[in-house]
Amino acid sequence: MERAEIIGVGTELIYGETLDTNTAEIARSLEAYALKVERTLRVVDEPLPLAREVGQAWKRARLLVLSGGLGPTPDDVTREAVAEALGEPLVLDEEMLSEIETLFRARGRSMPEANRKQALRIPSATWLKNPRGTAPGWWVRKEGKDLILLPGPPPEWRPMWEEVLPKLNLPRRPYAKRVLKTWGIGESEIVERLGELFKRDKEVEVGTYPKLQGVEVVIRGREDRVADLTERIRKRLFKEIWGEGDLTLAEAVKRRLELEGATLATMESLTGGLLGAEITRVPGASRFYLGGVVSYSVGAKARFGVPEELLAKTVSAETAKAMAEAARVLFGSTYALSTTGVAGPDPLEGEPVGTVFVALAGPKGTEVRRYRFPGDREVVRLRSVYAALALLLT
Amino acid sequence: MERAEIIGVGTELIYGETLDTNTAEIARSLEAYALKVERTLRVVDEPLPLAREVGQAWKRARLLVLSGGLGPTPDDVTREAVAEALGEPLVLDEEMLSEIETLFRARGRSMPEANRKQALRIPSATWLKNPRGTAPGWWVRKEGKDLILLPGPPPEWRPMWEEVLPKLNLPRRPYAKRVLKTWGIGESEIVERLGELFKRDKEVEVGTYPKLQGVEVVIRGREDRVADLTERIRKRLFKEIWGEGDLTLAEAVKRRLELEGATLATMESLTGGLLGAEITRVPGASRFYLGGVVSYSVGAKARFGVPEELLAKTVSAETAKAMAEAARVLFGSTYALSTTGVAGPDPLEGEPVGTVFVALAGPKGTEVRRYRFPGDREVVRLRSVYAALALLLT
Ligand SMILES: O=C(O)c1ccc[n+]([C@@H]2O[C@H](COP(=O)([O-])O)[C@@H](O)[C@H]2O)c1
Ligand SMILES: O=C(O)c1ccc[n+]([C@@H]2O[C@H](COP(=O)([O-])O)[C@@H](O)[C@H]2O)c1
Repeated sequence: MERAEIIGVGTELIYGETLDTNTAEIARSLEAYALKVERTLRVVDEPLPLAREVGQAWKRARLLVLSGGLGPTPDDVTREAVAEALGEPLVLDEEMLSEIETLFRARGRSMPEANRKQALRIPSATWLKNPRGTAPGWWVRKEGKDLILLPGPPPEWRPMWEEVLPKLNLPRRPYAKRVLKTWGIGESEIVERLGELFKRDKEVEVGTYPKLQGVEVVIRGREDRVADLTERIRKRLFKEIWGEGDLTLAEAVKRRLELEGATLATMESLTGGLLGAEITRVPGASRFYLGGVVSYSVGAKARFGVPEELLAKTVSAETAKAMAEAARVLFGSTYALSTTGVAGPDPLEGEPVGTVFVALAGPKGTEVRRYRFPGDREVVRLRSVYAALALLLT
Repeated sequence: MERAEIIGVGTELIYGETLDTNTAEIARSLEAYALKVERTLRVVDEPLPLAREVGQAWKRARLLVLSGGLGPTPDDVTREAVAEALGEPLVLDEEMLSEIETLFRARGRSMPEANRKQALRIPSATWLKNPRGTAPGWWVRKEGKDLILLPGPPPEWRPMWEEVLPKLNLPRRPYAKRVLKTWGIGESEIVERLGELFKRDKEVEVGTYPKLQGVEVVIRGREDRVADLTERIRKRLFKEIWGEGDLTLAEAVKRRLELEGATLATMESLTGGLLGAEITRVPGASRFYLGGVVSYSVGAKARFGVPEELLAKTVSAETAKAMAEAARVLFGSTYALSTTGVAGPDPLEGEPVGTVFVALAGPKGTEVRRYRFPGDREVVRLRSVYAALALLLT
């Protein structure tokens, strides 16, 4: 298979001052094409090393995509490096220059001298217009290969990439990928339950990926076989599957509650507000989420309706149950979720780190689940949030 | 300067199914050494491409660090690829094998056949013990160079790396880096206020980095000059600096409240619990944080003490003030923080997305600040949390 090479340009990407998520996003956008991404690179903002890496990547690639380093500052050297690597001169494009000047005038400013270089291109490049910024990109077609130069900020490069990608006439493959999301079942149990459905042949491949929101079952390969296999797997894991694709537990909860016309409230302890925060990350949360209480201290639990006799041992199923029921009454909601437990770093009330109780109070009564999560304080808190949300789905 | 090469191994890193933060963390840990990191790579779990990349990197590097691909599955091919690239055979180390077997026995299981390969090494490698997992690492010293093989999970590789790094005798550079953290002042204003202190010469370099927790002023270079310059900058920005180094706003708040022997409560709207979650991320939060209310709906605001006449216009300074004061009374705390505003995606009550009010109620009265934050829903919510915490510090 021919290769695609992807390079993120910027010293800040190497040190993680800015997290490089561009190269991964570009790699994913190529999954439907018959191109292999064997590696991705982050390279410093320096002409020599960058030109060397571009040269090597260009030699072996059918497609080379670079993002970053198209700004106006002296650190922005991607244009120079690519020109050097491809052995072409940089030429000022008067037409593009006046477009950039117009852009500045429209904002009531005159173009700083530094931005002139954004109108430089090599002869074999055509422009990719940037709808959201001053830095245009390049599309170089040469020797039966394509080189694409994109700016770094995702809001700028995404629309440019979406526009040019279909025009590249890259070889396609009949590829599909489906993701089934589960809760309450481990990887090895999934493999066992799937049995002969856990296929890994040349046409289709099933994989399991443990995530904080539960194990994901990923089915990829030839479109027709993926569609068929996904349906069979879905039936086999019916009870444990709560969603598909990019859906989050909080989005699935919103979907369910809106369908039902129900409302939700929370009372959280060890999660300290993280459950409410996760619920309200989803736009439109105010249509069903009434609010919550963070009962981080014993005094707060007492004030908001947890019976006195439970307060000596707050990490317990009884406390979780009482909290959910109290929140439901306090807010007058259809459902209420609660969390209590030990996020660490030290054991609490004789319970080890990771001991967590979550509860759901609703019209038909209250359900409590107990967990012993691995991981550090933040991971235990996140898992607790997801365990609470999962009560509404599985 | 000699080079360091860093490779993250794993197809899932290329596609971002697992976020690669290892290579950046390793790059940062090398900042005090006279080694140049010109690029970092993520490479697929396949022996051929991986061996090729390892071979090329090894040729040009003084130090090569790889993380990932040391597990027991067929996808874990880093050992094979490195052996191939360095032209050495893989040999089973009986001693390591029995150590791994012992590890499994201690967990009450027998070692699966698949884990045997974790005891393979090349003759020039010595073992790096893994205190947290079954995959030991390698330290290869050859031709005056070092190659380090680490597992992928940070809790596993971090202690291994910390132990081996000082033993590598890498060339040091007289390098220091200090980070001053500010709130309430922009980059250009900092540059202006610093004037001649905004140095950028061969020995010392000052930079500003806008982060969600405020602009960071980074001073790096020769140790003595960095120390001196940092103190002078600190005096110049005294009112705006709330911390240094890795400190977070929530940690600085904890420090201040513990010194004062004070307690804290919250009432949040648009942040939906994120403020409480940030406060309780810090171990020991229960020593001063009593709890909070998420008053996401108008009904919740009314129930928890916000006067009726304010509820028609909840995105306002008056509501923020009333919320903080109500929380202080409700929880009987020394201080209380509140947030209200528009996280988006749509305008609310005639106010554009990003309009936020935060308030601090305390023994000496109540302070309200108004912001108009850029960014999407999640960014606006995070900035609101940090703006609320900053009320206790600047
Ligand atoms: O601050 C408040 O009082 C408040 C309480 C709940 C929601 N909001 C904002 O109202 C908008 C709609 O909320 P939502 O959760 O339904 O998308 C969104 O901009 C939220 O940030 C604001
Ligand atoms: O669930 C609860 O009732 C609860 C309320 C507050 C704190 N905790 C846990 O108590 C421990 C100490 O809390 P902290 O915030 O002081 O580190 C830590 O394991 C928290 O997760 C637990």
